[in-house]
Amino acid sequence: MAFSYSLSHSPEGYLLLEKFGGVHLCFPEESTHAHRSAEQHGIRKEKLSCVQKAILEALESEVLMVAQDFKKGERWHETININLKNKPDWLFEKNPFGLVPILETSKGQLIYESPITCEYLDEAYPGKKLLPADPYERACQKMLLERFSKLPPLALKHLLAVKNGEDSSALKAELIKKLGEFEEILAGCKTVFYGGDSVSMIDYMIWPWFERLEFLQLSDCLQHTPKLRQWVEAMKKDPAVKATMTDAQTLNGFFELYVKNSPEACDYGL
Amino acid sequence: MAFSYSLSHSPEGYLLLEKFGGVHLCFPEESTHAHRSAEQHGIRKEKLSCVQKAILEALESEVLMVAQDFKKGERWHETININLKNKPDWLFEKNPFGLVPILETSKGQLIYESPITCEYLDEAYPGKKLLPADPYERACQKMLLERFSKLPPLALKHLLAVKNGEDSSALKAELIKKLGEFEEILAGCKTVFYGGDSVSMIDYMIWPWFERLEFLQLSDCLQHTPKLRQWVEAMKKDPAVKATMTDAQTLNGFFELYVKNSPEACDYGL
Repeated sequence: MAFSYSLSHSPEGYLLLEKFGGVHLCFPEESTHAHRSAEQHGIRKEKLSCVQKAILEALESEVLMVAQDFKKGERWHETININLKNKPDWLFEKNPFGLVPILETSKGQLIYESPITCEYLDEAYPGKKLLPADPYERACQKMLLERFSKLPPLALKHLLAVKNGEDSSALKAELIKKLGEFEEILAGCKTVFYGGDSVSMIDYMIWPWFERLEFLQLSDCLQHTPKLRQWVEAMKKDPAVKATMTDAQTLNGFFELYVKNSPEACDYGL
Repeated sequence: MAFSYSLSHSPEGYLLLEKFGGVHLCFPEESTHAHRSAEQHGIRKEKLSCVQKAILEALESEVLMVAQDFKKGERWHETININLKNKPDWLFEKNPFGLVPILETSKGQLIYESPITCEYLDEAYPGKKLLPADPYERACQKMLLERFSKLPPLALKHLLAVKNGEDSSALKAELIKKLGEFEEILAGCKTVFYGGDSVSMIDYMIWPWFERLEFLQLSDCLQHTPKLRQWVEAMKKDPAVKATMTDAQTLNGFFELYVKNSPEACDYGL
């Protein structure tokens, strides 16, 4: 799910979000994937020609990705969905934290932790680089991600408060304040995106959270942030974003089942 | 202090460690450094010829560093110590988290968060690079740091339990288990250091914690980790490590005053 990348550092946070997000977009895939063929189990194989899409996939869903070199040097990856309510043992052999995404290369190299995986994909595969070359600009993107990482736990607390009929106004005010800081930063950039006039790593890293604003019942939080609203519209036009969007209706449908502890939540929308 | 870099992601953790570590190695430096000359206030100016030393300094102490280009292209930096029990307002202008280290370049560019600052120093300054060039090896160093980040909070809990006369055996057992994992990883490397036969970024990133093992009353935790003991000895011979070492006696002296809430703790050992 969208949030895990920025919360994997916060034990309390990611446990919550893993519970919340992990079931969505997951197949009940308990046994080792190595014993199953892609055709038998609906594993998606796709060309890794669009590294941006792979990066968003790593951020948006709870997946194990297996990157493979196929004939003629074409690069492909399989996406294997994991049921995080019933984690398979082999997941812990691939990542001691038992978290996804995990990227496994054809050489058996394992890469985990969302920001590390995304940076690896950006460095290892050819094409337009998403992180800038300049050391200071690179540092700026990483610092911005660190600042952003405070938002998703707040948004989750807010959503749970709303769902439980509790007073959520203080949490919302805090969220609006923090979004105001991001509006200010974007205004300071004087560009469409956070890293310039074309989309870059930081935009993708924070995007999944904005994609879920409607589902999080926070769409109105952007009322006083015109720059951020423009950014959201520009992001929605990005081909990788388009290819990995999950609509609010699907997320809501999942969440309704999830809060009822329904086992069907697991497959909802897949 | 040594621990803050790996805990800056964990709100609970860093607050504790900031309290614990922040006062040591700090001058009471409340007013803006811009109004004070280096000579007046004992600010250390050093050539940044040894980026490794600057990196260790960023990890080991609670400092604001101002990197400056001086005549003939020589690079220098000043180290400005902050009293973290009484943070100056200007600190928050330089880093919204109000944490150190912060690096300020001669162009006024600000870089904060320990791992980001260290990576910036490695990228921006000439000399031997501490992070490997290969994307997978780079990812490995970052994943290892992520795994290591679970140790310092445990060690602090253990120290507080010892000082409070509480049962610390379970915490110690957990620490020994985790150190066993690091022993196994190093044995798997088949090299002196974690990144090969010469010191690299990951070694420096985790070093400050090992430097404090004696102070943390955990020296005996390495009893069953011969590879790690060899690594510690090899690290102690590194020139940058030698130049930034703080002995256990100084740390103990500080801590004794600190637990008594003595205002003199602030200056101890400086």
